[in-house]
Amino acid sequence: MEINYTMLCDFYEITMANGYFRSDKRNELVVFDMFFRTIPDKGGFAIFSGIDEFINYIKNLRFSEKDIEYLRSRQFFNEDFLDYLENFKFTGSIYAMKEGTPIFPGEPIVTVVAKAIEAQFIETFLLLSVNHQSLIATKTNRIVRAAEHRGVMEFGSRRAHGPSAAILGARAAYIGGAVGSACAIADIMYKVPALGTMAHSWVLAYDSEYEAFKEYCKIYPNNATLLVDTYDTLKSGVPNAIKVFKELGITKCGIRLDSGDIAYLSKKAREMLDEAGLTECKITASNSLDEYIIRDLIYQGAKVDTFGVGERLITSASNPTFGGVYKLAAIIKDNQMIPRIKISENIEKVTNPGFKKVYRIFDKNGKAVADYIALSHEKPSLPLTLFSPTEPWKKCTYDESFCLVELLIPYVIDGEVVYQNSDVVSIRKFALEQVETLWDEVKRFENPHKYYVDLSQELFDLKQKLLNEHRVK
Amino acid sequence: MEINYTMLCDFYEITMANGYFRSDKRNELVVFDMFFRTIPDKGGFAIFSGIDEFINYIKNLRFSEKDIEYLRSRQFFNEDFLDYLENFKFTGSIYAMKEGTPIFPGEPIVTVVAKAIEAQFIETFLLLSVNHQSLIATKTNRIVRAAEHRGVMEFGSRRAHGPSAAILGARAAYIGGAVGSACAIADIMYKVPALGTMAHSWVLAYDSEYEAFKEYCKIYPNNATLLVDTYDTLKSGVPNAIKVFKELGITKCGIRLDSGDIAYLSKKAREMLDEAGLTECKITASNSLDEYIIRDLIYQGAKVDTFGVGERLITSASNPTFGGVYKLAAIIKDNQMIPRIKISENIEKVTNPGFKKVYRIFDKNGKAVADYIALSHEKPSLPLTLFSPTEPWKKCTYDESFCLVELLIPYVIDGEVVYQNSDVVSIRKFALEQVETLWDEVKRFENPHKYYVDLSQELFDLKQKLLNEHRVK
Repeated sequence: MEINYTMLCDFYEITMANGYFRSDKRNELVVFDMFFRTIPDKGGFAIFSGIDEFINYIKNLRFSEKDIEYLRSRQFFNEDFLDYLENFKFTGSIYAMKEGTPIFPGEPIVTVVAKAIEAQFIETFLLLSVNHQSLIATKTNRIVRAAEHRGVMEFGSRRAHGPSAAILGARAAYIGGAVGSACAIADIMYKVPALGTMAHSWVLAYDSEYEAFKEYCKIYPNNATLLVDTYDTLKSGVPNAIKVFKELGITKCGIRLDSGDIAYLSKKAREMLDEAGLTECKITASNSLDEYIIRDLIYQGAKVDTFGVGERLITSASNPTFGGVYKLAAIIKDNQMIPRIKISENIEKVTNPGFKKVYRIFDKNGKAVADYIALSHEKPSLPLTLFSPTEPWKKCTYDESFCLVELLIPYVIDGEVVYQNSDVVSIRKFALEQVETLWDEVKRFENPHKYYVDLSQELFDLKQKLLNEHRVK
Repeated sequence: MEINYTMLCDFYEITMANGYFRSDKRNELVVFDMFFRTIPDKGGFAIFSGIDEFINYIKNLRFSEKDIEYLRSRQFFNEDFLDYLENFKFTGSIYAMKEGTPIFPGEPIVTVVAKAIEAQFIETFLLLSVNHQSLIATKTNRIVRAAEHRGVMEFGSRRAHGPSAAILGARAAYIGGAVGSACAIADIMYKVPALGTMAHSWVLAYDSEYEAFKEYCKIYPNNATLLVDTYDTLKSGVPNAIKVFKELGITKCGIRLDSGDIAYLSKKAREMLDEAGLTECKITASNSLDEYIIRDLIYQGAKVDTFGVGERLITSASNPTFGGVYKLAAIIKDNQMIPRIKISENIEKVTNPGFKKVYRIFDKNGKAVADYIALSHEKPSLPLTLFSPTEPWKKCTYDESFCLVELLIPYVIDGEVVYQNSDVVSIRKFALEQVETLWDEVKRFENPHKYYVDLSQELFDLKQKLLNEHRVK
């Protein structure tokens, strides 16, 4: 199952690597941060995911003979650089959030400390892994919250952007709170529960809907969810389903609505099922759902037990990109940390310089109240006064009743993998617990409260100093 | 590089396969069509892509021991079915459009004739491959047309939905008309030209922009495109680039603008470069571009030679799904073709029954005027009278000066692969030529002319007959 994705990089990562190799920066250590600027769908938070895929990539990082041959054929690179690549491996350190952690704009979610060539080279794959899976985990969690304790199943493989979008998307959807996925291979690879029963083609393959249902229920008497909308949901599908369930004495069963007005049809179908004594028969709804439609359906009293969500989840259709970026934060020269800042006309786009740590402050009830970014040598302790980086006169002090949790944990130290998430059941549990630590105001869909992400005084002062130095130039 | 994607299916494909296996339908032949209903971005046509990936999947289709073990663990399936899967392979036939063909709603773009189990099982992977790559090829072609002969480079790997979205997306983008991609592995795997030079981090890694530029140009004197927006494009970036190019006597060079107002900055930068005698220096622009922004930039006289397009291309952000579906069209029982139709309240959603062929009618100037769907046993010839399936009184006769080209070609016959596209350069050439056969009215972005896709009289009559039969029931 392993593919070597070493060459899944932007070509400029290699031209720059060669540049660093040829310059005196060859062995210079640098610090890069991955962070993001805006939350998809104007939400109040995102969910961190995809680091596992990235750590696997780091483990397998090596240029094959074929890769080297290709690079040679480009006639861009000297032999000494190609020799160097032959023995290339990642020897630096990687710190990142735990998968499933709620994350906020501006804070480092991954920090890489490594030689310039290595830190630069891994950019594309890091961004691609974390951007993709964080996007899908975040979107799924919105849909799961809209469904209010009803199950959400990921049904989107056929509309995913290629095989890994289907597989890793199913994984991320599960982490975000889906109860399972239709994608069978995701169960084999990641233990994401695979679910599903029948398509319209099953019904069309028989001379009548009744016959199609009966045949199916005979084969799966303990797990029959019948798709009832092939001909006419209320006049044909539901009556045929009831008839077959009754004839075969099946009570643990379900029906699926895949078209029409789900609110109306589900209420009518529920009545018909209940009247027939099939009170345990579950109703699943699918067909172009997302968090907004699900919320509306529930508001209108739709009698749906489980939602199957396809393309709008697996592509995060309303907001199909997660804008994580990877920026240089410091250079380490002669054992000295030289912070770097990227200037922008827009203050929100100015990066936070230096090697940093991120802390989350929880109150005594376990609610997250703010995140706090400090330079790595600082040792913050309670009581702690935070201030807004854009409006510094706004202050808030947290006393000893609060607690500080460090969020960036080491995954790789000096090239050795020291931590790896692997069990999606635990990651999912952690994610859902962590989402519970957020205030409802942060979880609101429309105009959510902006969660505080503040800087330490020292980091704030450093940032101002670098900004001023640049203005002088 | 090969992954076995056999289990990349919706779980219901397997429960249905088991169902067919246990019923008398085990060896029944069926006909399935893949088609789509709406064109992304309300465009006038889409571009067919992704069949290659699907044919590779068909070639490698086999259940591994691990797959069988997993299915056994689900306690859903009997041993005879699992034995059957152990020797499962695809023994049917697959007809599809050539990659790069412009395609239209309602017409079969892939037709599968196979045993019910086999035809059903391959659904998910077929849809996923063709939906993904057709989406990206179609979107890219829009962007390429907006750029009017300027090059478009695919820059989106870091925002792609997982590794295969980056790699296969780069392939599809190239087919759609991009001049290349930043994605290096796509060059190795598919010969999509890999392009790119430097990131902001290169500039930040040096004490000054001038130093960063000079170092880079020394290493790549024949291929230096300098990123000029790290500090201040017109006050710092462009002057430093000019200084370095002049000092080193470089004329074959470029600059890249990645932020700010591209129209204004490119015009000012062009003036500065020309005044310095660097008339051959190319200007590349990137930063959240798509077809609409590019069209506007050109309209405003932006002096851009090449566009680098990232997330909005690789995710087709304004329309991130391609809605291809796969529907049963006929059952073959005792050598007799029994057509099937899927009814819907919406006439556009009613499927076309039977085993069909698709013809494109070209005029003597090589312009495509209409597509014509007929039943496979029909032998249409010129002169040919077409009528609108929704407004049958609207007719048009094509005389012998026109020509009829059959669009669905055999890729797999009785399990043997008989045709496979592989050379993306030829596919790209074919795609761009075929797009040229379309009238400008069909290629318009806003409210394009609806290209005619008509049915043969026999197919039309069959459809009406089946519709009436269903209404009677």
